[in-house]
Amino acid sequence: MRRWNGWGDDTISFALAPDALAFLAERVGDGHGVTDASFEQACAQVAPSRLPPHRLIETAAPVRVRHALGQSLPDWLKLRYGRIGATPDGVAFPESADDVRELLHYAQRYHVALIPHGGGTSVAGHLTAEAGALPVLSVSTTRMCRLQHLDHESQLATFGAGVFGPDLEAQLRAHGFTLGHFPQSFEYSTLGGWIVTRSSGQQSLRYGRIEQLFAGGVMETPAGRLDIQTFPASAAGTDLREIVLGSEGRMGILTEATVRVTPAPEYEAFHAVFYPDWHSAERAVRELAQAKLGLSMLRLSNGVETQTMLALAGHKKLIGVLEAYLSLRGCGEGKCMLMIGASGDRAQARAAMAQALTLARKRGGVHIGRKLGDKWKQNRFRNVYLRNAAWEHGYVIDTVETAVDWPRVESTMLAVEAAARQALAVHGEHVHTYTHLSHLYAQGASVYTTFVYRLAGNFDEDMARWRTLKGAVSQAIVDCGGTISHQHGVGSDHAPYLAAEKGEIGMAAMAAIFRHFDPQGVMNPGKLLPNVQPSQPSRAPSQGIAA
Amino acid sequence: MRRWNGWGDDTISFALAPDALAFLAERVGDGHGVTDASFEQACAQVAPSRLPPHRLIETAAPVRVRHALGQSLPDWLKLRYGRIGATPDGVAFPESADDVRELLHYAQRYHVALIPHGGGTSVAGHLTAEAGALPVLSVSTTRMCRLQHLDHESQLATFGAGVFGPDLEAQLRAHGFTLGHFPQSFEYSTLGGWIVTRSSGQQSLRYGRIEQLFAGGVMETPAGRLDIQTFPASAAGTDLREIVLGSEGRMGILTEATVRVTPAPEYEAFHAVFYPDWHSAERAVRELAQAKLGLSMLRLSNGVETQTMLALAGHKKLIGVLEAYLSLRGCGEGKCMLMIGASGDRAQARAAMAQALTLARKRGGVHIGRKLGDKWKQNRFRNVYLRNAAWEHGYVIDTVETAVDWPRVESTMLAVEAAARQALAVHGEHVHTYTHLSHLYAQGASVYTTFVYRLAGNFDEDMARWRTLKGAVSQAIVDCGGTISHQHGVGSDHAPYLAAEKGEIGMAAMAAIFRHFDPQGVMNPGKLLPNVQPSQPSRAPSQGIAA
Repeated sequence: MRRWNGWGDDTISFALAPDALAFLAERVGDGHGVTDASFEQACAQVAPSRLPPHRLIETAAPVRVRHALGQSLPDWLKLRYGRIGATPDGVAFPESADDVRELLHYAQRYHVALIPHGGGTSVAGHLTAEAGALPVLSVSTTRMCRLQHLDHESQLATFGAGVFGPDLEAQLRAHGFTLGHFPQSFEYSTLGGWIVTRSSGQQSLRYGRIEQLFAGGVMETPAGRLDIQTFPASAAGTDLREIVLGSEGRMGILTEATVRVTPAPEYEAFHAVFYPDWHSAERAVRELAQAKLGLSMLRLSNGVETQTMLALAGHKKLIGVLEAYLSLRGCGEGKCMLMIGASGDRAQARAAMAQALTLARKRGGVHIGRKLGDKWKQNRFRNVYLRNAAWEHGYVIDTVETAVDWPRVESTMLAVEAAARQALAVHGEHVHTYTHLSHLYAQGASVYTTFVYRLAGNFDEDMARWRTLKGAVSQAIVDCGGTISHQHGVGSDHAPYLAAEKGEIGMAAMAAIFRHFDPQGVMNPGKLLPNVQPSQPSRAPSQGIAA
Repeated sequence: MRRWNGWGDDTISFALAPDALAFLAERVGDGHGVTDASFEQACAQVAPSRLPPHRLIETAAPVRVRHALGQSLPDWLKLRYGRIGATPDGVAFPESADDVRELLHYAQRYHVALIPHGGGTSVAGHLTAEAGALPVLSVSTTRMCRLQHLDHESQLATFGAGVFGPDLEAQLRAHGFTLGHFPQSFEYSTLGGWIVTRSSGQQSLRYGRIEQLFAGGVMETPAGRLDIQTFPASAAGTDLREIVLGSEGRMGILTEATVRVTPAPEYEAFHAVFYPDWHSAERAVRELAQAKLGLSMLRLSNGVETQTMLALAGHKKLIGVLEAYLSLRGCGEGKCMLMIGASGDRAQARAAMAQALTLARKRGGVHIGRKLGDKWKQNRFRNVYLRNAAWEHGYVIDTVETAVDWPRVESTMLAVEAAARQALAVHGEHVHTYTHLSHLYAQGASVYTTFVYRLAGNFDEDMARWRTLKGAVSQAIVDCGGTISHQHGVGSDHAPYLAAEKGEIGMAAMAAIFRHFDPQGVMNPGKLLPNVQPSQPSRAPSQGIAA
């Protein structure tokens, strides 16, 4: 069953080896585990529902707790310490677009805030049930999850928007196709969630970001049903898909989406190449990205991340042999690991990989074959369980990500890491921080930084540490000219930094779009943008529940 | 000098060989040339300007005539017959974003409609100077044309938005780069025009549509300056570029744009492959597009287009030899020509071409080498001059284009061609009509249809013929589920058909966006969308010129 206060399924755990723990202790000090609050304790806090009854809405405490929060660190702190805060007043489980329409009417009539809920994996506070004085209804999309149509010829598949990653892939693989969208949250996130937060998968180099995969769909909005037809391309005015993408629940609820699929790859390989230092590695990966070889993945870890991954891998002897070999080949301390993926038609993918390896070696890369790559692929959705394991030993693992043009990649990485270290120094704590470039573009790269530090053991202090650190790194991103999110969206946590990149005029335009679709301001209020003022007086509530 | 009433430069002409004329006469009857009105006659019609004077505005008749219309057929009819109709009351030549700001203030203060004017090559009526009772100011962007910044590392170039295609490429080539955006209008269209009409170049298969090339920029709008930063990618809410793309002058004037450039290709080749019939050709080209080989162009002519191109090529003997050879190889009447382009790094491009030719042959294609491809490349921007030559012999050449998913490609092509033929049958005229798929996608293709028919020799009848034909083919596109434009935008001519694809809710959303940026409705009113109602009372005109 889904873990209610941590990542993933509660039957899956991913232990930290003693060596790994020693590695962390050496860097940030001994961790001290915290006793989690129980699910029952959490449920006991839930206030009576303020919602008028409706056939689609459940108001029992357990379901409300399970839809109250996401997977951001502050969400975890609330769950683990049993300080849940606001929960939605109810959770609806619509099974069709018409059900969703009905819920929108209900929300407008009773002036209830709606929070669309897909897989609940947001790491940016998209799900927080705070809506001023309004009652809150969480709307789960997960019962709209069927493959509705598959057009083999155009390679288009239409799904209910609440389909989870594995169910989507299983339904496609049965017909020989793949979407190829594999964010780390893949197992527990939904197609609709990917679309409205502009998600990017680990193999976006081949398959594209969700923006490129989303061909059309249906969104129910307070202003009506927005039905977006599919075209291979169009020059006819505004691309309505782009209004839906990144809308984060502010304009409506996506009920179905048509996506561009690809024949399942007949070949896939991930190879590891090491570089002696960051500069040679960054230069090599830029050349690889700009050469447009048709690869499916490029992922470059900096020195500390490389060291950390090898330390946490748990095969001390094997890793020792590898490191000795790499050292002989000039890759000692500070070495950086580059993972290269190729997928697709066998001949094409192998040719692309061969070209990539030739280019990678030309820049001083040491190719060590597929073993680490196979391991990475095997654990691609498992590594995130390390967050659970670390927590149990008293450590926090948190991340931020941005994207910048090439001239700012290194400086942004250094600034974000430095900001994190300084931020917790104020709290007398060390931060172990490391970075990888997760997505490579001709124009630049995403910069994905991880922070490991100790839990204080009490909610307020841990929340304060997170706030200090998150504020410092977000400010560093903005100061470096990075986007506040490359792949996780804005939600509550990044909203204060959005104006830095959109500008006042851009923010006003976004607000105008959402106000148009949602004049009463009932759609996920407070997320993405500061709350939008209703453009018309809200209707008088007929049951006295509204503010 | 730019021809004032036809395509291109008046020193360039492209004669039709006697055989070509005979070919046309056989199909649609003998043409009878029409005597064009003179430039002086056109200028004599220009009404006194209603604009208050301004240092940036010219109001002499010649400049107003030269900015009155574009290159659509009704625009041509007006120019050629000297029935210009409305001209702008003046033309402004801003040299900076601040100049543009000043013009926006002027327009708001005096309630003047602004029509942004790039290269004036619109074929959809974007430039028509009709704005109800408002005086009209055409704003030429062409003095904002410098390369302002080139970031070699990120492969980003920032230009004044009014730069013409050849000037843009020349400035980039001097640094070893290319944008690779080559619409047929390339020589006379501008970067800003490409962006606000969502243009697509002939080699978009490699370089992408303008949507993929446009990385950021500055648009001056009545609501303020929208400054869009560049990121390799972002998940932070609405992508503001997408509001600018396809805005067709409704929200503001683009003053600068940053585009993604690529090292100039070291190798480029275009090969021709023939197929015996449409079905085998369409299937082959779909497989090629879906194989993602890294080609730069795929372009498939149907049987009649293939026949027409060979007939108009003018080398009767050589073509005869070619056709005899093709016939021996099974490609007789109804044969279809596929043009395949590969560009870039020599090894990569040659490998892509080799793979493509292997795949193309596997589906029954007969590869005839590079000769026709070289010829095509040489004339890629010259063929459009045929419109001038045909006109002089009394023939109209007009085109429409759409894009549809694969299952509808053939039926759309047939429906558009049939609609055109039937439409002019009512006028007792034949239409010679043929089609190519100009841009290929995994999902589908653009369907680009050409019509050749006779001029009646009088303005009203020729306008009536065009209206009947345009209406019929546009309705056929809409009925087939195609977009009303794949690469030329909406303007005035396609506006009546836009709601069919956007829906009522989508149209209202677009209107809301433009109303937000332009509450007074002074930006290119009536284009793209039915005119937007001002959301606030317009300011009282201080010089009594407004409606």
